[in-house]
Amino acid sequence: MFAVTILGCNSAIPAHGRNPTAQILQTQDHSFLIDCGEGTQMQIAKYKVKLNKLSHIFISHLHGDHYFGLVGLLSSMSLLNRTHDIHIYGPSLIKDIITLQLNVSKTILSYPLHFHPLGENTMIAETNKISIESFRVDHDIDCWGFLFREKKNPRSVDPEKVKPFEIPSSFYDKLQKGENYTTKKGTIILNEEVTIANSASKSYAFCADTIYRESIASIVKEVDLLYYETTYLKDQEEKAAARFHSTTIQAGRIAKLANVKRLIIGHYSSRYESIDVFLEETKEIFDNTVLAIEGSCFSV
Amino acid sequence: MFAVTILGCNSAIPAHGRNPTAQILQTQDHSFLIDCGEGTQMQIAKYKVKLNKLSHIFISHLHGDHYFGLVGLLSSMSLLNRTHDIHIYGPSLIKDIITLQLNVSKTILSYPLHFHPLGENTMIAETNKISIESFRVDHDIDCWGFLFREKKNPRSVDPEKVKPFEIPSSFYDKLQKGENYTTKKGTIILNEEVTIANSASKSYAFCADTIYRESIASIVKEVDLLYYETTYLKDQEEKAAARFHSTTIQAGRIAKLANVKRLIIGHYSSRYESIDVFLEETKEIFDNTVLAIEGSCFSV
Repeated sequence: MFAVTILGCNSAIPAHGRNPTAQILQTQDHSFLIDCGEGTQMQIAKYKVKLNKLSHIFISHLHGDHYFGLVGLLSSMSLLNRTHDIHIYGPSLIKDIITLQLNVSKTILSYPLHFHPLGENTMIAETNKISIESFRVDHDIDCWGFLFREKKNPRSVDPEKVKPFEIPSSFYDKLQKGENYTTKKGTIILNEEVTIANSASKSYAFCADTIYRESIASIVKEVDLLYYETTYLKDQEEKAAARFHSTTIQAGRIAKLANVKRLIIGHYSSRYESIDVFLEETKEIFDNTVLAIEGSCFSV
Repeated sequence: MFAVTILGCNSAIPAHGRNPTAQILQTQDHSFLIDCGEGTQMQIAKYKVKLNKLSHIFISHLHGDHYFGLVGLLSSMSLLNRTHDIHIYGPSLIKDIITLQLNVSKTILSYPLHFHPLGENTMIAETNKISIESFRVDHDIDCWGFLFREKKNPRSVDPEKVKPFEIPSSFYDKLQKGENYTTKKGTIILNEEVTIANSASKSYAFCADTIYRESIASIVKEVDLLYYETTYLKDQEEKAAARFHSTTIQAGRIAKLANVKRLIIGHYSSRYESIDVFLEETKEIFDNTVLAIEGSCFSV
């Protein structure tokens, strides 16, 4: 099970009570923070997000509205005597920025901090149950999206059903992938006889800041939940392109092309006080769309 | 006239809805921002503080709760197409921190930004009507307080009264300081005949984070308004000293020793949810004390 909580949904400048980008993805065992704009630690407190399961932080790019809150969050976790590791995945220079700021205040963190620069390797992290891939998007500085997938075999071995057969446990991995087993005597044991089907593996894709590129649709193909930016309404397509951002209609198109189950839109420009029209416009193309609103939580 | 608006009053970690340190000092012609903890730009928006008169920013020291909001504020002012200069007075490394963060995002600010490192020169800035001095306080990293004084002569030349006498205008400066004028014929024109008394020059002192040091009292002697930190209540005097902070009683003592007119206390530790006792305890020593509460404004 995935649950995405929106901590910030505005672009560039905080405005109209909306904070810069930050989201937290919670699974059964882990919390993943995606981007960390200024004020994220206050938003975490406001929405009572627990940090005990947080171990991975993903920073899409080094525009301030996506990371200016990181050093404050890292410092506060240290002041609160956190002891377990934090792994940061982001553009390589995030390490210099954080290290400089910790050094000038002579801060020695209470927990180990690890930096993992994003680059050409796309499989960047995994836990027991989740794999995380990065993918490049097209913004005016280096920028990455992130794809979270449950690691789940299509089938599970049924301990009761498997008992009568002498199948070595070394073959279980193949059973879980759906293969039949052939005994030494040549008898075929059909996979369905000893396994049960698992529910589908869940997935969440965060597309960060990007100009409209259809190639993104193939990367996020058929995810359960897609976050795609809508900095501008549809009448600002030229401005969006000039600034390497997208519009409502473009977000809808990506969701449709990728055949995703649900679309979250956000990263609204400060020029818009009301965001209702963002939803209306995107729904023209892709109906199962929701607005990123701070404090709201979307489950998969 | 001075007016100090509190934008943040908590120490170290934002907590109980209280933000890290930031204050804005407004005079007739200028606004001065003193410290800039994370979220300051949101607090500026929340309390509708105008930035058009802001030209000077003072950063007391490089603990994050006093400057993590600076890069965000500087970036946002650029996105809003500010054109007039900003001068930052702070520890020299603030330049490296800000420059690195602007560079990684390829940001070219829309306005000129000037850094002025704090050091042994104590007269750090002035405008037509205000002079600003820095003074060292005693914290666990380099840390400075700031003293704002109206530049005002004790007397003003009365244009009507001065008319009958042939006093060269080059002597007006001396008249404003209270001197008599002696004509070429040796006649003495008494100062009081041609000038009027000005109201007293107003002053505000911000003492930043500091351990209790009586020497500070002589620096801020007889200011109209003193901000002095009270990170801890009186029963935590040992802890306060170990962490280079002060208590309520110590703040009261400095105010009393310095014979200031009014004392603002703040920089409350996150361990305290309610801050009422801070006021009670400080008033035991110095009665004219007020609590720094976000959004409150104190005039001189």
